[in-house]
Amino acid sequence: MRKVRIGIWGFGAMGTGMANMILKKDGMEIVSVCSRSTAGKSIYDVLDIERGDRNEVIINGNYEEAFTEKSCDVVLLATDSFTKKAFDKIIYLLEKKINVISTAEQMAYPQADDPDLAKKMDEVAKENGVSVLGTGINPGFVLDLLVLALSGTCEEVNSISAKRVNDLSPFGKAVMVEQGVGVSKEEFLKGVENNTIAGHVGFVESINMIADGLGWKLDKIEQTKEPIMTTVDRQSKYGEALAGNVAGCRQCGYGYVNGKVLVEMEHPQQIIPEAEGTKTGDYISIKGIPNIDLQINPEIPGGIGTYAMIVNSIPLIINARPGLKTMLDIPVPRAIMGDVRDQIEVELEEDATVEI
Amino acid sequence: MRKVRIGIWGFGAMGTGMANMILKKDGMEIVSVCSRSTAGKSIYDVLDIERGDRNEVIINGNYEEAFTEKSCDVVLLATDSFTKKAFDKIIYLLEKKINVISTAEQMAYPQADDPDLAKKMDEVAKENGVSVLGTGINPGFVLDLLVLALSGTCEEVNSISAKRVNDLSPFGKAVMVEQGVGVSKEEFLKGVENNTIAGHVGFVESINMIADGLGWKLDKIEQTKEPIMTTVDRQSKYGEALAGNVAGCRQCGYGYVNGKVLVEMEHPQQIIPEAEGTKTGDYISIKGIPNIDLQINPEIPGGIGTYAMIVNSIPLIINARPGLKTMLDIPVPRAIMGDVRDQIEVELEEDATVEI
Repeated sequence: MRKVRIGIWGFGAMGTGMANMILKKDGMEIVSVCSRSTAGKSIYDVLDIERGDRNEVIINGNYEEAFTEKSCDVVLLATDSFTKKAFDKIIYLLEKKINVISTAEQMAYPQADDPDLAKKMDEVAKENGVSVLGTGINPGFVLDLLVLALSGTCEEVNSISAKRVNDLSPFGKAVMVEQGVGVSKEEFLKGVENNTIAGHVGFVESINMIADGLGWKLDKIEQTKEPIMTTVDRQSKYGEALAGNVAGCRQCGYGYVNGKVLVEMEHPQQIIPEAEGTKTGDYISIKGIPNIDLQINPEIPGGIGTYAMIVNSIPLIINARPGLKTMLDIPVPRAIMGDVRDQIEVELEEDATVEI
Repeated sequence: MRKVRIGIWGFGAMGTGMANMILKKDGMEIVSVCSRSTAGKSIYDVLDIERGDRNEVIINGNYEEAFTEKSCDVVLLATDSFTKKAFDKIIYLLEKKINVISTAEQMAYPQADDPDLAKKMDEVAKENGVSVLGTGINPGFVLDLLVLALSGTCEEVNSISAKRVNDLSPFGKAVMVEQGVGVSKEEFLKGVENNTIAGHVGFVESINMIADGLGWKLDKIEQTKEPIMTTVDRQSKYGEALAGNVAGCRQCGYGYVNGKVLVEMEHPQQIIPEAEGTKTGDYISIKGIPNIDLQINPEIPGGIGTYAMIVNSIPLIINARPGLKTMLDIPVPRAIMGDVRDQIEVELEEDATVEI
């Protein structure tokens, strides 16, 4: 069987992370990359690695040139957080008969916020015999798929609480602003009000995925964002929070079923959490038969975790029946340590032409 | 859509556990139970619960009467630990065009020890348009599927160690004997030699599932069984270990890839582990990019965990394409808290006749 042909759309932190990972794997190759900011460069120069005997891949700024009919088996789309913004790109790729995996947080469960767009993607995917999936570390794994996986060992689930405590320090300037790092309490509260402090995108997706996965009918979801105040000065590479100011954002989400909160999520994100003794980690507690208490210390890191989930889903989206898929529909992605083609159950078209 | 029709073959601890669970759920019904030891009795009398307005189900000692062509959508087979012993029953059911989920530990990955039987089951299932799956808490979840699920967030996996520390106290007399509870060190070692101390069945399955899931080629698997000696007297409902004797069995398994141990498993099982300060739990450690350290304290209990995994897999085996399935092939089972029919994607034959 020929190698699996991968395209990457968006070549920032996620896109380059995926590319680096793919280049270390057997049985797949990057055949096309689309990015406006680095157009015209070789991907090997951008990644700062030796090309070796691999095919040259020059980054294309024009997506219609980068991705033509069946030119890739899968395109990894790493350009957006919101379904509405990723939608046109996804439809374009599906109509070119290319499978799509998206990093957009909302695409982990687009049924939640954009049911009409989800329906449309499902239809277009089916018409073209391909599939589309959104995933990542969270949403996509820690606060939804992992919760559901544990629930499979339960006779009854009465309620779920899950918490992801992480360190924002490795992230860049934009994230510091989105999370309110360094501002005063008043500025934070104003930022939450006018939506400049965006916090985490994903609770609506995770809570809906859990509810649908278990068969609970959600009444509503509520979310809160509170400042995490620091009593000591904290300094990270791209952020600074002086004592008395905001070190990050504690976001909580509540899923109501029959008037009661059955799903509770907490996601406190701050720089240098250890400065005041906060231990980072992922925590899941299920109350039911039986009770289950899980912890992962430290938390599974966000960056690697997301691009790994995307790349490790490649064989599964190729195997999937056509349509819009979520983590509820496909087998669990696992690390690809052998030839990815060993995990593929369908025939890749030998005669597919690569026109780039 | 009509209710999902379930049969249960074997009505011991597992079979009755499943039955109790199913009777609490919406959208499925028990239509037949086969067991020689309780033949002729109503399942509600055996379970000691009110029949209410449910259909009567009289336990049948004859499997050919209990299960006829298409009389069930799924039969849960809870009679054996080994594929060789379950094989004829599974073939019988598949030929009656009935999906099968087996509790047999080896059936979690029958490819490992019985590749010929696995191939045959796959063929017969496909010929008859149905599927067969083995699962449970372990093998089936803690030391394999959960490990693989975590690996999906990894760019690289270098090695895996996993440990399940549990309490044997709730188990019966047969398990006490199998695990060597209460015997002297010499008797234990002799029992391991002549296979009367069987220990845990499942390492071969879990290690093969992990290796195949990741794409590692296994050279070999080694296993050891050591006595867990107690320095204090321990007393459980069905077992007793005096100071200086054996409280249980520590079983270890090692999966070699390219001459190195890349998968290491430990499963110490003993009565009253807290007597000497042992904390029970499930532990997984992945060395790779990134490292991941997970713990679940206390461990997910074996009994409930196994029958819950089996029952929660019902909609997934109905949805699956025909053939032999493992946890690598189907979406992750989750607790069924709504109507199970909401999770079913195929049409159940309305005209299927129930002849019992």
